[in-house]
Amino acid sequence: MAERPTGHQVPTGDEGGTAPNTRPAGPPPPEPSHAERCRTLVASASRGALSTLAADPQGYPYGSVASYGLDDRGNPLFFVSLMAEHTQNAIRDPRASLLVTEPVPDGADPLASGRATLLGLLSIVIENDRPTARARYLEANPTSAYYIDFGDFTFYRLDVQNIRYVGGYGRMSWVDAAAYAKAEPDPLAAAAAGIIQHMNADHAEAQVLFCRHLGGRPDTTEASMSAVDRYGFEMIAVSSAGRAPVRLGFPKECTTGEQVREAMVALVANARAAAALAPR
Amino acid sequence: MAERPTGHQVPTGDEGGTAPNTRPAGPPPPEPSHAERCRTLVASASRGALSTLAADPQGYPYGSVASYGLDDRGNPLFFVSLMAEHTQNAIRDPRASLLVTEPVPDGADPLASGRATLLGLLSIVIENDRPTARARYLEANPTSAYYIDFGDFTFYRLDVQNIRYVGGYGRMSWVDAAAYAKAEPDPLAAAAAGIIQHMNADHAEAQVLFCRHLGGRPDTTEASMSAVDRYGFEMIAVSSAGRAPVRLGFPKECTTGEQVREAMVALVANARAAAALAPR
Repeated sequence: MAERPTGHQVPTGDEGGTAPNTRPAGPPPPEPSHAERCRTLVASASRGALSTLAADPQGYPYGSVASYGLDDRGNPLFFVSLMAEHTQNAIRDPRASLLVTEPVPDGADPLASGRATLLGLLSIVIENDRPTARARYLEANPTSAYYIDFGDFTFYRLDVQNIRYVGGYGRMSWVDAAAYAKAEPDPLAAAAAGIIQHMNADHAEAQVLFCRHLGGRPDTTEASMSAVDRYGFEMIAVSSAGRAPVRLGFPKECTTGEQVREAMVALVANARAAAALAPR
Repeated sequence: MAERPTGHQVPTGDEGGTAPNTRPAGPPPPEPSHAERCRTLVASASRGALSTLAADPQGYPYGSVASYGLDDRGNPLFFVSLMAEHTQNAIRDPRASLLVTEPVPDGADPLASGRATLLGLLSIVIENDRPTARARYLEANPTSAYYIDFGDFTFYRLDVQNIRYVGGYGRMSWVDAAAYAKAEPDPLAAAAAGIIQHMNADHAEAQVLFCRHLGGRPDTTEASMSAVDRYGFEMIAVSSAGRAPVRLGFPKECTTGEQVREAMVALVANARAAAALAPR
């Protein structure tokens, strides 16, 4: 099943309207697939909202807090008390989903942040798989170390069958479970916040160059980075006409901060070359 | 239906064991009911995990992010796109729940924080009630102002039928919906963080006095406030034997920070009087 874009779109990013984009025609800059975005999002957190089916009132969807680790295919591994409501629910009916959300910055619109709903079946982790489940869970949840060997608790796995991804307004789809299982979390995920902070603190001028000469926004007066991944990065370009999102691809995939630094140097050279050719 | 305590208990608070409590026999200090704790928790947030029943895969519980306001009875009011999955789910089957969680401090055990699951039926808000729903929703979600009048969106209410409350380890129950509807959010909720910060920054000595002479922990060497509500407050008392939670009631209910200040002055006098009577 391919990614199926669905759902409403509320315009955002282009606040107050902008001039038309003058980027030359060509393929759009590469970006992570929704399957990759989901794997990255789910791997970046260790707690979500687990929905199960309640016994009383019968059949009601029941939301609870659940900490998790992940197996190699991105299936969540839970460590649950046998007496907890969600465990009792799962024993009666294994249908479940796990909602994982990006953190929402203070004062930001929560509906602009990413979230993924992993739908699937809950089952108890068999004895042979328990040491791995335990290690994965502990790695993701170090505060659970003091009760990880309580007899009342056991490991459950959510075998993901289908995924709803919402990356913010207008970026949403159903993601195929096999594509999710094969996808890799973005190798830059842990470094991204530091890269963004550095670029915005020390390289605001370079970003204006990028937007003007590579991003098709020649009227840009200010620019700031909002996201970075192995394939490229996103900026908000500000001009007298408003704000517009600009994405640029890296010359080649980056899996480390050092490779991003090298890519930025190459892009600055490209932007200067484009500036020299630009009509005055 | 009364509050029914259920579920497992993982010991906490008493880390490493403590000496027995020497507080004189008598009624325990007053504290908020679980219905009041739920109302306070739900009123303190404006975003939760909404669980509905999916069409595809059919009957799976489906978790999504939902912002909300509250009506006078504490029923959540949602402003949803007709095209969103959760709205389509609710149209087919109105059974739903909303999970609301307390923020988890960095590095803290998430299972020690409070959360409430409100189970009930979703229904569209009738025209007469829409202006109030709109006002309540906007008050709780100011960032939604720019799309509050989009035609594609409508108001839904979750009529709460039953509530699962988990206030951390060992504090959990099913809460009756009528008790929840009648309960008042704690009037000190907004002031609590400031009161706690002030007490811990400037009145650590007073808290040691409280724990030693009013809280039944004569061996206390350090104490810090962890919670405050209209009926009293909670401290963590540290001694050579470990850490123990201590709750004290206010001489009378406090609904403002100024009343808390007066209550603390009275309690310091009580603690000094008790200290003068204590065996040496």
